[in-house]
Amino acid sequence: MAVDNRKADATEESLHRIFTVPEAPDSTLGRIEKEISENLNAFLQTHIAATEKPLVDIEKDFSSADIPETPSFVSDHTHFLLDKLVAQSVHTSAPSFIGHMTSALPYFLMPLSKIMIGLNQNLVKIETSKAFTPLERQVLGMLHNLIYHESDDFYQQWMHSANHSLGAFCSGGTIANITALWVARNHALRPDGEFRGVAQEGLFKAMKHYGYDDLAVLVSERGHYSLKKAADVLGIGRDSLIAVKTDDHNRIDLQALEQTLAELKAKNIKPFAIVGVAGTTETGNIDPLDQLADIAQAHDCHFHIDAAWGGATLMSHKYRPLLKGIERADSVTIDAHKQLYVPMGAGMVIFKNPALMTAIEHHAEYILRKGSKDLGSHTLEGSRSGMAMLLFASMNIISRPGYEMLINNSIDKAKHFAALIKAHPDFELISEPELCLLTYRYVPADTQRALTLATAEEKESLLNALNDLTKFIQKRQRESGKSFVSRTRLNPVKWDRKITTVFRVVLANPLTTETILEDVLSEQRALAKLSSISLPTIQSLTDTILKREQISLS
Amino acid sequence: MAVDNRKADATEESLHRIFTVPEAPDSTLGRIEKEISENLNAFLQTHIAATEKPLVDIEKDFSSADIPETPSFVSDHTHFLLDKLVAQSVHTSAPSFIGHMTSALPYFLMPLSKIMIGLNQNLVKIETSKAFTPLERQVLGMLHNLIYHESDDFYQQWMHSANHSLGAFCSGGTIANITALWVARNHALRPDGEFRGVAQEGLFKAMKHYGYDDLAVLVSERGHYSLKKAADVLGIGRDSLIAVKTDDHNRIDLQALEQTLAELKAKNIKPFAIVGVAGTTETGNIDPLDQLADIAQAHDCHFHIDAAWGGATLMSHKYRPLLKGIERADSVTIDAHKQLYVPMGAGMVIFKNPALMTAIEHHAEYILRKGSKDLGSHTLEGSRSGMAMLLFASMNIISRPGYEMLINNSIDKAKHFAALIKAHPDFELISEPELCLLTYRYVPADTQRALTLATAEEKESLLNALNDLTKFIQKRQRESGKSFVSRTRLNPVKWDRKITTVFRVVLANPLTTETILEDVLSEQRALAKLSSISLPTIQSLTDTILKREQISLS
Repeated sequence: MAVDNRKADATEESLHRIFTVPEAPDSTLGRIEKEISENLNAFLQTHIAATEKPLVDIEKDFSSADIPETPSFVSDHTHFLLDKLVAQSVHTSAPSFIGHMTSALPYFLMPLSKIMIGLNQNLVKIETSKAFTPLERQVLGMLHNLIYHESDDFYQQWMHSANHSLGAFCSGGTIANITALWVARNHALRPDGEFRGVAQEGLFKAMKHYGYDDLAVLVSERGHYSLKKAADVLGIGRDSLIAVKTDDHNRIDLQALEQTLAELKAKNIKPFAIVGVAGTTETGNIDPLDQLADIAQAHDCHFHIDAAWGGATLMSHKYRPLLKGIERADSVTIDAHKQLYVPMGAGMVIFKNPALMTAIEHHAEYILRKGSKDLGSHTLEGSRSGMAMLLFASMNIISRPGYEMLINNSIDKAKHFAALIKAHPDFELISEPELCLLTYRYVPADTQRALTLATAEEKESLLNALNDLTKFIQKRQRESGKSFVSRTRLNPVKWDRKITTVFRVVLANPLTTETILEDVLSEQRALAKLSSISLPTIQSLTDTILKREQISLS
Repeated sequence: MAVDNRKADATEESLHRIFTVPEAPDSTLGRIEKEISENLNAFLQTHIAATEKPLVDIEKDFSSADIPETPSFVSDHTHFLLDKLVAQSVHTSAPSFIGHMTSALPYFLMPLSKIMIGLNQNLVKIETSKAFTPLERQVLGMLHNLIYHESDDFYQQWMHSANHSLGAFCSGGTIANITALWVARNHALRPDGEFRGVAQEGLFKAMKHYGYDDLAVLVSERGHYSLKKAADVLGIGRDSLIAVKTDDHNRIDLQALEQTLAELKAKNIKPFAIVGVAGTTETGNIDPLDQLADIAQAHDCHFHIDAAWGGATLMSHKYRPLLKGIERADSVTIDAHKQLYVPMGAGMVIFKNPALMTAIEHHAEYILRKGSKDLGSHTLEGSRSGMAMLLFASMNIISRPGYEMLINNSIDKAKHFAALIKAHPDFELISEPELCLLTYRYVPADTQRALTLATAEEKESLLNALNDLTKFIQKRQRESGKSFVSRTRLNPVKWDRKITTVFRVVLANPLTTETILEDVLSEQRALAKLSSISLPTIQSLTDTILKREQISLS
């Protein structure tokens, strides 16, 4: 792509502006923003929580189960909300909130979201949404285009077709994943001769008709927990969501996958879907999608990709190749409320083939009549808000190159932070950033050396104490309210696949600076010193090991 | 309850105000509202659609599947949205929009919703929601209290209990109904000896373990279509959602239910849930809940009530008795975005027993750890917005007596409209309002008489033509954009259970006046005259019948 530098500069500037201050204060948007800012003062503080208050104390403000018998004035209740709720909420858009996938929002979404709330459209049907329906269909088309790059003719033919759907807008990635596997299940156990399909006759009869002993869905052990929920809801059973082990880089082990598929076949178990992960929730790694597509094809499996986090990377020409193969997926989950920077509640599942969603089509007498363009005939949810509007606006206002900049900055920042961690003697990087996620932990330099010299027993004690220490630091840092990283547990190859507690960092906020990242590490080192159990244990063990080594060397 | 008249008056006044003009223009709230109003001018017009434009024309404005390569100015894009989207959206809060359950919103929700959008909390876990979690738990407690009236001790013990949940806040009634039946299914096919339960092992093994030939969920033929979707998703199969016939008043026929249950038992089919409807979507009728509770108990079925629409009636001391027996339900669905007047996307399912939701409990490594108070461990959805805040605010600002007034006004208005229809010679009331819904159709007085004299063949022709005419009028009225009623198809006993197309009216907007209702009828009469096929057919048949009668009488 030829880059117009002038344009790119303008975008960079406007990008920065939308994340910092609203437009000129005398514009309509500016005035609106000013009013709201006055009310949400706590929201604009630099601390993540204004004052750290234990949850049990907060619960006291929300302890009555009685619906009030007397009305409150709006102003009084607003003060209550500002004092008791806003002040005790989590400032998810703070530049030092780098622990979860809840993103900061561009300021222009505040007034625009008022259009969404004020119009209160219901996207289940055209009669309560009118122009919002073509808009949502267009948004689904744009995302389909982002993934599959079909021809203009394709979109002209299918985007607004009454009996087809390029996907479903939904409340989030979980509903998107459930929808994808629902379609896959219904397609695998479709009508066949006398049998009218699993949708109509249910799973028990479907299994007897097709003669399988069980079903299976395969995904790497890094797959999102929503897939287990999907397996439960869909009647497949959590056991049938088979977690395939990952390699050193948290990517699905293809050999293990092939072996599992062979074992299932031998047991007369039908694997009807393979799920690739494009941006694991914990480490941000991407499965080898192209090879997964080959395997799914060879085994006649629906190929779904959970790109709830990583899908937005397709906006970046630079990093798009990381997701090579995604264009071969039968379905893809993308969350717009993650790296597309719209408010919570904007998930999507996109289907390659516009006819695939007929597997879950439904109708009713008073709406969703056959031939209508009502979106509700292909969604798991019923009534839905006009949230697609905010994604539509964001894609127009930020544009593809704007998103590319956001994505590239995030990944580059993660790489910088990884370098910082690796250069620091007291920290250990656990997972390298492929997207803008990484994991690491605090391990004093001496202890790092001691670990290479420890006996098996000493090593286990040290690793356990390190897990406790990581947990201690993470909790204390969260409580201090200056910055927030999350924690999870991994099983890194380097540590013999032993359960390892780690700090987890997500660097999607464009306002997060390198100084903030340095401060996060400094604070963690300082907090470690406050540990009265884990750190002394670690230090004493470290001393023992290093002294023994010194003696044996002398 | 002792009524304080002074207070009640104040509420009535403030109630009217919140639906008409915002607070004094110099207040913060007033200034914010002013700005938004200027932008949303189209939204404030009296017409439902500013100009009626065919959908195919609107689609032209939303026809490109390309994500823009150049950014737009916020102001320019806002103008696009106002011209092409807002102007072509449906004014769901217009007083003459009486066709669907999409409600008008109190004005105070506009600025308050900004807090929700701006803070962008994620209710899946405390780390991204903090005080919003106790708030949502309190809201669930308040709704539980509204339904079940448990003791204060009960709520102190369970409302904030980490390992329990009084329900789930979700995007809408569909997810609520699916969640209820998911819990019911998992409870019916629970772990038993060696068998680890349907959640773990799946439906096929569960059925073999329990030895049933099939499962069933029973609901009246007026049950919402989401239940069929639930049966599909949950692997039970749409066939297994058994529609029991209704009586003259669209309420489940208890004898038919008992008979169906006996038949299922004889066939070794396990009915694991009975669903009562408290406010059918099409007619607003309420099943005999107390008797349904008896039957569910006798047959060891989970008793779920779909009160998505009617649940809010519990706020009214006057009409609460209509739902007698709801306090015996195992679970209840209520949509706050319907008669609790909050924006789209606020459904709830409430469980009587705080332990019941453990049937669907799930955990993950990085969040929802065991013992945490994260709400996400008991929800079908994952990431969710802080929508509960708006319901919390509404219950405080409007208060229980305020809601009672809204509910009572709506029902009384429906009764008034029913009287108007019955008094009018050219209209026929099809379903009497029990809540604020009713159905009717246009049948010229002569034709009403002719129908009593017609042969079977003539009657059928007349009824078919009347169906066409109703459809014609409803479409024309929608297109004219002045007012909107919806249409559906019923099978009234009066018309030998023949499919009958009817106008469907939902009177939940407090600003709908009696004059508007009279105008709706006038417009429908006028529109009928424009029918060039149905009405002439009806008139000529009517003439033939009445002439024959005249001859036979003379």
